[in-house]
Amino acid sequence: MSKRYGYLGPTGTFTEMALRQSTQLATDDEHVSFVSVDAALAALRAGDLDAAMVPIENSVEGGVSATLDALASGDPLVVVAEQVVPITFVLAVPVGVGLADIRTVSTHPHAWAQVRAWMGTHLPDVQYLPGASTAAAAAGLSLENPPYQGAVCAPVAAANHGLTVLHEDIGDNNGAVTRFVLVARPGQLPAPTGADKTSVVLFQREDRPGGLLELLEQFAARGINLTRIESRPNGGRLGDYCFSIDCEGHVNEERVGETLMGLQRVCAQVRFLGSYPRADGIEAHVLAGTRDDEFVHARAWLNSLRNPQG
Amino acid sequence: MSKRYGYLGPTGTFTEMALRQSTQLATDDEHVSFVSVDAALAALRAGDLDAAMVPIENSVEGGVSATLDALASGDPLVVVAEQVVPITFVLAVPVGVGLADIRTVSTHPHAWAQVRAWMGTHLPDVQYLPGASTAAAAAGLSLENPPYQGAVCAPVAAANHGLTVLHEDIGDNNGAVTRFVLVARPGQLPAPTGADKTSVVLFQREDRPGGLLELLEQFAARGINLTRIESRPNGGRLGDYCFSIDCEGHVNEERVGETLMGLQRVCAQVRFLGSYPRADGIEAHVLAGTRDDEFVHARAWLNSLRNPQG
Amino acid sequence: MSKRYGYLGPTGTFTEMALRQSTQLATDDEHVSFVSVDAALAALRAGDLDAAMVPIENSVEGGVSATLDALASGDPLVVVAEQVVPITFVLAVPVGVGLADIRTVSTHPHAWAQVRAWMGTHLPDVQYLPGASTAAAAAGLSLENPPYQGAVCAPVAAANHGLTVLHEDIGDNNGAVTRFVLVARPGQLPAPTGADKTSVVLFQREDRPGGLLELLEQFAARGINLTRIESRPNGGRLGDYCFSIDCEGHVNEERVGETLMGLQRVCAQVRFLGSYPRADGIEAHVLAGTRDDEFVHARAWLNSLRNPQG
Amino acid sequence: MSKRYGYLGPTGTFTEMALRQSTQLATDDEHVSFVSVDAALAALRAGDLDAAMVPIENSVEGGVSATLDALASGDPLVVVAEQVVPITFVLAVPVGVGLADIRTVSTHPHAWAQVRAWMGTHLPDVQYLPGASTAAAAAGLSLENPPYQGAVCAPVAAANHGLTVLHEDIGDNNGAVTRFVLVARPGQLPAPTGADKTSVVLFQREDRPGGLLELLEQFAARGINLTRIESRPNGGRLGDYCFSIDCEGHVNEERVGETLMGLQRVCAQVRFLGSYPRADGIEAHVLAGTRDDEFVHARAWLNSLRNPQG
Repeated sequence: MSKRYGYLGPTGTFTEMALRQSTQLATDDEHVSFVSVDAALAALRAGDLDAAMVPIENSVEGGVSATLDALASGDPLVVVAEQVVPITFVLAVPVGVGLADIRTVSTHPHAWAQVRAWMGTHLPDVQYLPGASTAAAAAGLSLENPPYQGAVCAPVAAANHGLTVLHEDIGDNNGAVTRFVLVARPGQLPAPTGADKTSVVLFQREDRPGGLLELLEQFAARGINLTRIESRPNGGRLGDYCFSIDCEGHVNEERVGETLMGLQRVCAQVRFLGSYPRADGIEAHVLAGTRDDEFVHARAWLNSLRNPQG
Repeated sequence: MSKRYGYLGPTGTFTEMALRQSTQLATDDEHVSFVSVDAALAALRAGDLDAAMVPIENSVEGGVSATLDALASGDPLVVVAEQVVPITFVLAVPVGVGLADIRTVSTHPHAWAQVRAWMGTHLPDVQYLPGASTAAAAAGLSLENPPYQGAVCAPVAAANHGLTVLHEDIGDNNGAVTRFVLVARPGQLPAPTGADKTSVVLFQREDRPGGLLELLEQFAARGINLTRIESRPNGGRLGDYCFSIDCEGHVNEERVGETLMGLQRVCAQVRFLGSYPRADGIEAHVLAGTRDDEFVHARAWLNSLRNPQG
Repeated sequence: MSKRYGYLGPTGTFTEMALRQSTQLATDDEHVSFVSVDAALAALRAGDLDAAMVPIENSVEGGVSATLDALASGDPLVVVAEQVVPITFVLAVPVGVGLADIRTVSTHPHAWAQVRAWMGTHLPDVQYLPGASTAAAAAGLSLENPPYQGAVCAPVAAANHGLTVLHEDIGDNNGAVTRFVLVARPGQLPAPTGADKTSVVLFQREDRPGGLLELLEQFAARGINLTRIESRPNGGRLGDYCFSIDCEGHVNEERVGETLMGLQRVCAQVRFLGSYPRADGIEAHVLAGTRDDEFVHARAWLNSLRNPQG
Repeated sequence: MSKRYGYLGPTGTFTEMALRQSTQLATDDEHVSFVSVDAALAALRAGDLDAAMVPIENSVEGGVSATLDALASGDPLVVVAEQVVPITFVLAVPVGVGLADIRTVSTHPHAWAQVRAWMGTHLPDVQYLPGASTAAAAAGLSLENPPYQGAVCAPVAAANHGLTVLHEDIGDNNGAVTRFVLVARPGQLPAPTGADKTSVVLFQREDRPGGLLELLEQFAARGINLTRIESRPNGGRLGDYCFSIDCEGHVNEERVGETLMGLQRVCAQVRFLGSYPRADGIEAHVLAGTRDDEFVHARAWLNSLRNPQG
């Protein structure tokens, strides 16, 4: 049966590229574009989608707040796959427009932040008009009388809209990548592969000194490495944070399970955001004493202490 | 001698309000508006300003990346004061426009994120046009043929541009505040008050497991509470972070000094962003064994061990 | 059916007093004295005894090495009860002997250490002859031509052998107590009472820096207080230690069970020495997040994550 | 000028051997034997000695309580050198006595503990008579009508008293060694060598949960390894301990100095027992970030933060 996937649109965004690259897709799957992360995840929660691809982290700009916040509240959703996409920006213009004609450029604010140095050198006097997405900026150039003359977008978006690429690779950071996650309603977990990540959002029981330290010690005590940590405001007063964390390992593994239970006991709330294979395939580093068989053996040993007659 | 202060403009932004509220200002001081945090801090670094007021943290939206990143690199700057301003949004329109006439609304993306629920209820079909600032969105409505009919902005910006306020307090979060910092070139430190904060950016020596834990233990070992922690990408590969941290206390205090030295020894780089009085005036919690006189006493004792004949 | 209990003899030792005070004894139980802790525990291991009372810790002299080492190797034994006995020493002599007649005094070395100040004041020139026990020193005075004229012993031992008590309460430390443990072969565990101790011996996996810190963190991570810690040589090279530890709580409690499993995973060996009611009846301090019901709830929550369809 | 050294006697003890092996001795130095550690250290405190050699730790029997306790209270003394001596026991008898003639054996209790297995095999029915030292047991055999027929002692003690050695190397543990320390009144510290130890006794501020953990973290935070840790009763109630600790490094080194200051701030009392070259010459492991030049650099950096104009 074909599936229905949402993504942060419009056509031509890096998010769509991430969705296309995802190995889970079949040829007859349906792709639906949404104007915002919130809209895509709302449709997913409503049952209109099987899954949605959204950006979560950029190597230059950091965490994508809209995604982090949308996953941290509302009906539970879980990540089932991740995709890392190199980010390459082009300067696209309508046919016939030259560099000297550009007085205003539009693109998504995150993209703008990543081409600032190039713009400072090549178009020092250009004005910036924020766009809803890089692809929307490109699309706008194909309308009549656009209020800007150039768009910073992905190569595919320039091609989609018949634009001319004046310059390729104008990003200030050559190795820039964005990490996207495929999100679904809770259901069958992806099977452990030995190279997995687990994502959680941790809400502290109270605003106590050393609180974050205590949470990190729950991971450290079981030898688990973190691959990402973001603090996000709780929506309450200044300084009231929750922590969005990715760690190595799969919830079905013993050391991850015990860590999650430990967090659940000391946190006000632990929101589980899924266990899924890492895009880079790097196997988890498992410290001596934290392998599954060592947990199983320890449990059997404990049972023998508790039931010495058995 | 009058001073020259920069701020994230235009006139009517919350940043200007923060600057006006700052108790350090004299009546003949000059206020200069800038189109971006980067521009304001560049002018400050160039010596064109005595100080600049910029937003650093919002209780709903989190850290302000542009400010965090601009402080974390380039010539050193330090925070010399902080200001916390309640954020109140109004829906402003040109005279004669009613709610039913609004098809498109403009504002800064952060502001948009904070009025989403209100918009979903009252203007569910409205389109969003990103603006460079809340004040710029208000200003745009006074131009001829603006591409939008409503602006989300501060009350003062609506007043500045002769707009009608259709609705007050449309923020989804009533207690929302933004924290602003007054930044200067390194010079005379503000004197310790007993209710101070110290800000640093920590770059880890390598991407090692438990790295953040090790850094936090440097604070914990001297009984120092953190009031803010943000991870920011280093601009390198995914997962390569630095940490922007505010902690209680003043660099001139012994426990803070020893903590900074400890961090400096184990980090690749520690960037000092200043010690300054807290806006809320809350006195630092000083654990037994970490008072200045206890450090002085311990040092005298150590000297007596090293020079037993003395 | 009557039971057979061993103790460190001879009759009149504080160990026998501890055994008599033990509430577990029936009137027809048999008490057997042994010349050493090793001998008593060997008989217990051989099945000749139901249990044995041995000293483990003195408030002045510290851990009793013979007991600690005998429990740490050989066939497993577990503590099933503890008894704390105030230690009161008397100076006993044969009938007719006066203070001025005493040139040599005998007692156990631990007892001698606890009356040194008294001796320095009242018998500054007396010679010390080590005895196998305080009671043996008393017994020796009833033999013909003993090589000493006074014994430091318990009041009961003086009475047993018809000796005269020249001085009572000659201990340098008025509140001195010794803690005794009733040891048995592994079998039915004493039921948890809420005021229990658990004893273990921990052998580190290798001689690694920070090794003890890592072990203590296993306790701290589950909020468990230690009541005693002793390092004992492993019998190998200098600096090669095992750790004999008592902690609050019962092995059947979740937080203690998880701690023991954690220790078992990171140690070369964990030797379980029993869970038993505290002699002082002080209830364990249970931190928020470490109650049994919180562990049970966390486990159910983890299961729901692992089986989201269930 | 010749010096006067005390030691735990009599002649022929392992302690005397340690003193003779010490490289610090000149040929005209005077050696004075004492009947107890307490007596030797009292003479040292009174100014009658320049230094005293006493046993502190045995690889089989553990810490020597008399030495640990004598150093932990009273006028300050410091360790200025250490010596590690292999412990070899012989079974010595008067001329003409054979194995079959031995019904009772005398020696120091620590020595007896180390030959138990040999005795169990070769003299299973022998009685044990505690002696004040191994050398005293040997000396006793040269008196008229001794109450025992064999002594367990060092080879040199057997030779000193003209005894016959029936069996050599009867210790159960072939590699057994005892560590001795040369103690002096506080004065000129031995110069740092890069392979030093520092000894301290730590008294906790109160009996608080996690207290030992907090103390160990002071060492760990500066990357300092412990080589020995003993808990000793404070002489107060059961469970009231102080900790006798040896760590790598010299008090004149920055990381050790900061650790000692940290301990001094959080402890009720820190008793410094000296910094001295290790007998085994093993160089201290110095973690990145804890070298002296890194501390010096960190301090200069902190000063530049505090005095930005300078």
